[in-house]
Amino acid sequence: MPKISNKSASMPSSAIRKLVPVSDAAEAAGVKVYHLNVGAPDIKSPKCALDAVVDKCRESVNVSYTNSAGLIELRRGMVEKYYRKIGIDIDVSEILIDVAGSEAFSVAMQIAADAGDEIIVVEPFYTNYNTFAMLYGITLKAVHTDIREGFALKSIDEFEKVVTPRTRAVLISNPCNPSGKLFTKEEMLALGEFCLRHDLFLISDEVYREFCYTDEPHFSAMNIPGMEQNVILVDSVSKRYNLCGSRIGCIVSHNKDVMAAALKFAQSRLCPPRLGQYAALGALDTPQSYFDEVKAEYIRRRDCVTEALNKMPGVFAPVPYGAFYVVAEIPVDDAGKFAAWLLTDFRMDNSTVMITPATSFYGTKGITNQIRLAYVLEVPELQKAMKIFAEALRQYPGRTI
Amino acid sequence: MPKISNKSASMPSSAIRKLVPVSDAAEAAGVKVYHLNVGAPDIKSPKCALDAVVDKCRESVNVSYTNSAGLIELRRGMVEKYYRKIGIDIDVSEILIDVAGSEAFSVAMQIAADAGDEIIVVEPFYTNYNTFAMLYGITLKAVHTDIREGFALKSIDEFEKVVTPRTRAVLISNPCNPSGKLFTKEEMLALGEFCLRHDLFLISDEVYREFCYTDEPHFSAMNIPGMEQNVILVDSVSKRYNLCGSRIGCIVSHNKDVMAAALKFAQSRLCPPRLGQYAALGALDTPQSYFDEVKAEYIRRRDCVTEALNKMPGVFAPVPYGAFYVVAEIPVDDAGKFAAWLLTDFRMDNSTVMITPATSFYGTKGITNQIRLAYVLEVPELQKAMKIFAEALRQYPGRTI
Repeated sequence: MPKISNKSASMPSSAIRKLVPVSDAAEAAGVKVYHLNVGAPDIKSPKCALDAVVDKCRESVNVSYTNSAGLIELRRGMVEKYYRKIGIDIDVSEILIDVAGSEAFSVAMQIAADAGDEIIVVEPFYTNYNTFAMLYGITLKAVHTDIREGFALKSIDEFEKVVTPRTRAVLISNPCNPSGKLFTKEEMLALGEFCLRHDLFLISDEVYREFCYTDEPHFSAMNIPGMEQNVILVDSVSKRYNLCGSRIGCIVSHNKDVMAAALKFAQSRLCPPRLGQYAALGALDTPQSYFDEVKAEYIRRRDCVTEALNKMPGVFAPVPYGAFYVVAEIPVDDAGKFAAWLLTDFRMDNSTVMITPATSFYGTKGITNQIRLAYVLEVPELQKAMKIFAEALRQYPGRTI
Repeated sequence: MPKISNKSASMPSSAIRKLVPVSDAAEAAGVKVYHLNVGAPDIKSPKCALDAVVDKCRESVNVSYTNSAGLIELRRGMVEKYYRKIGIDIDVSEILIDVAGSEAFSVAMQIAADAGDEIIVVEPFYTNYNTFAMLYGITLKAVHTDIREGFALKSIDEFEKVVTPRTRAVLISNPCNPSGKLFTKEEMLALGEFCLRHDLFLISDEVYREFCYTDEPHFSAMNIPGMEQNVILVDSVSKRYNLCGSRIGCIVSHNKDVMAAALKFAQSRLCPPRLGQYAALGALDTPQSYFDEVKAEYIRRRDCVTEALNKMPGVFAPVPYGAFYVVAEIPVDDAGKFAAWLLTDFRMDNSTVMITPATSFYGTKGITNQIRLAYVLEVPELQKAMKIFAEALRQYPGRTI
């Protein structure tokens, strides 16, 4: 019997999804599981997005390939109806439609770095950065941000400490998954200077841009002066319009070499999904009121969760100003064991909660007492989930207080 | 200004798509271009596929993620309504939905081989095999099939000559893109024996399975006795149901390690497109009459093209028994130059044809007098295209007869 490759054998399972079979088993046994483990929002997609798919399917006879770079009307629409409106000035040739943010950052990493090269990443970070780095032989060098400092960017000295001749890029998500940290204009400018000094790409994953809970507008890496040739923007319609399943994202850059390379990657997989592109095209007409309502809803949810968490003995959770995640320090021996125990052992009114241990969001070893919660349920559900969570912390045999 | 990676800089442009800008320029100047260059059929998708998308969008409020392995009802439906019917007996756990055939064979290659390993491929082959091999550091070793022998599989001795301790798999497409060769049961059994003898995976790309023009049924690699742990089947709904833009394919194997690895790759990109999965789900109810009509139409097209080609002086084109491509030997100095000349210089009634030079379908160097034509237009269009092509061959300055 032939053996599978070492690469695929040693590839990590998704930290976020690997407890799914355990959760499935609990649910099959009739247990109600509150899913705070994955950023899959319950919010409605804009009606105009679904209507566009229906209309296009009614008038089409064939779901044919699109251009590898995506439908030209979608690229143009995104430039004119979305990016221009939010102050990101790009040409149609500077945007390419990808199969969701996942493909966009996977390609961006490969454009920036060869096998053996290094990318500096701000931790905690989205675990799939690590998965793709491993697949492509790229080494991630983590620069730590601390939960006790609200995940603020450290002094640029911390970046200087890890930069080497093999460093090719800095990778950051803003607002950050998992920490919910919204990096400020000042932080981004400092990072830009560092990248310019060392001639590095800055891969900026801004898929949560519409989820910022401060009065200041989001500051995109695309607007760091002098960084036109350095920035590769990774974006997605998944979160912005609650169209996660449409699998439409994009890669944006003023750098012509980057866009030419992105097109070659795009051609190798022929085209992005046509039906999802229809949804994205329709979504461009989403009224501002939709975003306002969604944002207000997330602020209520965030407040519900962080207030509840910070009342629990030994729990510390900085208030997130972006995305829809919160990372919390909790008084347990091992967050991974605790997450599994919640699904296998703990029940309150025949219910439990599913959470994600934050260990794999760090390059730094030994951070075993943090978890990530996605506040993607309605407030009454979140309230119940927080009650269950508090009780679980009281009962967990491995509690440290 | 930071430099892009060597990998992305040296990545080949799609041989099939790289003349697109030249063709766009001709069309912008008012020239009618007959596109025989790409396998993008003009055939209608089954109505049930489009209807399913409309129905699901009407009753949905959110285009959310699906399971990374795809919708369970789609996997089940494919097992029961499609594979069982054609004599491929698999369990739901042995199929995983991928983002089209492209992702499926890209993942299959990575599951079979590490960087530095080798995969034997039957040439001529689909060029993106080469693109992905290059991206993953895998070396393709080509075993030649000859146009003058109707692209029949050579003696297994030819495979024995190229196998090394680093060989991990054999990769074949059947029916073959680009040659249109339909490999027989005997050929596949011989290949199976070879794989078993050397403990190799057999990656069988069968996306053109429904396009076979003989009375014998297609013989799937899944039905080679004793090869249960060796075969990785790559499949797609793109061609079968004329749903190229839906981007839905699958990877199928009885090998549990292969399927576990495929799931990890699937998790890294979260999920396949939900709307495309709806189309695929609807397509499962496509009546047999649809396939019969499509097949009859392709036989008419094939006959139109191959008869016309073989009447042209110095042209040789074996009749293809599968897929919707024909590879032809033509009397020119360089098929690449000829293909470009057609778009830049040649006009007949202000029209021209676009074709694909076959050079990049070969690992063997120096095959510069072959082209691939996709017979994806209606017969009257194909007749006009063939007239133009014949005239172009007469006028081309680099003709060799």
